[in-house]
Amino acid sequence: MFKAKAYSAASATSPLVSSTIPRRDTTERDVQIEILFCGVCHSDLHHARDEWHSIMPTVYPCVPGHEIVGRVTKVGSAVTKFKPGDLAGVGCLVDSDHTCPNCQDGLEQLCPNQTLTYGSPDKHLGGVTYGGYSDSIVVDERFVLRVPANLDLAGVAPLLCAGITTYSPMRRWGDLAGKKVGVVGLGGLGHMGVKFAHAFGAHVVVFTTSPNKKEDALRLGADEVIISTSAEDMKKHAGTFNFILDTIAADHDINAYITMLGRDGNITLVGAPEKPLSVSAFALLFGRRSLSGSIIGGIAETQEMLDFCGSHNIVSDVEVIPIQRINEAYERLLKSDVKYRFSIDMASLKSE
Amino acid sequence: MFKAKAYSAASATSPLVSSTIPRRDTTERDVQIEILFCGVCHSDLHHARDEWHSIMPTVYPCVPGHEIVGRVTKVGSAVTKFKPGDLAGVGCLVDSDHTCPNCQDGLEQLCPNQTLTYGSPDKHLGGVTYGGYSDSIVVDERFVLRVPANLDLAGVAPLLCAGITTYSPMRRWGDLAGKKVGVVGLGGLGHMGVKFAHAFGAHVVVFTTSPNKKEDALRLGADEVIISTSAEDMKKHAGTFNFILDTIAADHDINAYITMLGRDGNITLVGAPEKPLSVSAFALLFGRRSLSGSIIGGIAETQEMLDFCGSHNIVSDVEVIPIQRINEAYERLLKSDVKYRFSIDMASLKSE
Repeated sequence: MFKAKAYSAASATSPLVSSTIPRRDTTERDVQIEILFCGVCHSDLHHARDEWHSIMPTVYPCVPGHEIVGRVTKVGSAVTKFKPGDLAGVGCLVDSDHTCPNCQDGLEQLCPNQTLTYGSPDKHLGGVTYGGYSDSIVVDERFVLRVPANLDLAGVAPLLCAGITTYSPMRRWGDLAGKKVGVVGLGGLGHMGVKFAHAFGAHVVVFTTSPNKKEDALRLGADEVIISTSAEDMKKHAGTFNFILDTIAADHDINAYITMLGRDGNITLVGAPEKPLSVSAFALLFGRRSLSGSIIGGIAETQEMLDFCGSHNIVSDVEVIPIQRINEAYERLLKSDVKYRFSIDMASLKSE
Repeated sequence: MFKAKAYSAASATSPLVSSTIPRRDTTERDVQIEILFCGVCHSDLHHARDEWHSIMPTVYPCVPGHEIVGRVTKVGSAVTKFKPGDLAGVGCLVDSDHTCPNCQDGLEQLCPNQTLTYGSPDKHLGGVTYGGYSDSIVVDERFVLRVPANLDLAGVAPLLCAGITTYSPMRRWGDLAGKKVGVVGLGGLGHMGVKFAHAFGAHVVVFTTSPNKKEDALRLGADEVIISTSAEDMKKHAGTFNFILDTIAADHDINAYITMLGRDGNITLVGAPEKPLSVSAFALLFGRRSLSGSIIGGIAETQEMLDFCGSHNIVSDVEVIPIQRINEAYERLLKSDVKYRFSIDMASLKSE
């Protein structure tokens, strides 16, 4: 066991502050990573503030962060995939039971006995797992991803959650080349959805309430932008979409988007509004449309996504911040004041 | 043009009464049918009472009925599929534009210019189309179905709507053999869903609020029955279904059924509750589940369904009534007091 630097919250109402946390010594299958960048996901904020109490109450102190990229500093004797000096990534999961049907099918994100990167019971040290707002982490090599060498590391970090969350459902839908694909919401998830849909060869349409996002949407790879508050614009595109990725985590009118779908079209939710969605059965019936949910992706698919990003030169658009500005970043996150993801430069933790 | 006997309603609050309606003389492509039986669908009641006013306001007088089976009495000169004396069926549609992408794909039920069997503008005679509560009907042969000779005709009639409505989404899902399939609600649609799912080789589970329906569900082909008001029963089966057919047209807790689905499971709505459904995004996300809608089926698929029924000896369980009891039947329909579909014996219309 060794001590690592980290930023942690002591309670739901406390700011994140500099602290030290224990990390385990590398066991046979472990990889020890010096964290270089960690993305800031909205889940981090929910967790720090115990806003998902009914599903997963937060144990304090807590250390968020599950969009981790860094460099391997040490490996266990049985580790084969990594050696010191390699780039490495860690996403939302650090372990699973490896035996359930989901794990056997490479869908560790659906394992009922998974260990989340932060906030899950820690099988090695007791207490709960601590995330990536830290200078290092020790993870079973089966949950460590290889990172393409050609990508900007600050922008790679968010791929580990925002990237795979948007990549997975679009890939699962099928070949999007030439298809009309909508992306609802242009934030951390949405901007990745646009980049992937564009790379898959789709005709990409961004739905947004903010006319001032139009130029940026086109820059990111959108072919068109629909201002969703314009009834006329919406009507013009009704019934024409093959697939829509809905990234909105706030309450919104889902039927407005369901009716945008053509025959057998699908809208997949990757955000999770707290309030139930009000869904019109008629909107689903006429057109045999469907509404799905998707949650991150498995480890193999996450690696596939990173490799795809490497060969297509895709990273997240990030604003790099020092760890000392994380509390301010949370406030700005609440106002959607970031283009499009904060990425913490962990070099800033060295001065603490 | 000739006069046909029919039962029609003069207003949303009038009972159905004996009347005469015009039918067109057979054109080149038309088939004239003596109606032997007509099933009673809940849509008939909604239409007669103008309960779907906001979607499709009823024009009066109206003649409901879209589960029609009878015998061909006359055919136009260009008709090749039928000759006088043949059995014939007509479902919810009597025409479409034949040119839209949906029609070209054999999905006339999604044609934006379709002609419904009742209540649509009548291109031949003006006014609106009149349905199957009548002694005869004249229909373009492309919308007339062949009826297997080995089946009980009273029980065949409901196949034209209740049958195809349940057959189509289950077929589309894929091979159900060995899969765990749920059917929510055991009424006109639900009991057909059970019969088809059983014939497809699925492990069929009926969800019902009525313990007294258990025996009947098993007789119809169910392997198990879950009393949906029993939290214990529901919990035991959570996360285990591949596919669920939801036939409930009343307001109900859809999340209770979404959480019954296993990974990538789908629940398809074939009933259309008037109030929006309250859908938990979390229930969809965890397990990558989906919620779909489906509406009847195309003509080719309806024929496939009838042929399947012929070779598997499947008909609807019906209570045969004379047309003179249709108003009483509507009242009983509202109380779900029928096992499982009323089928009107049109011989009763001769005495009017």
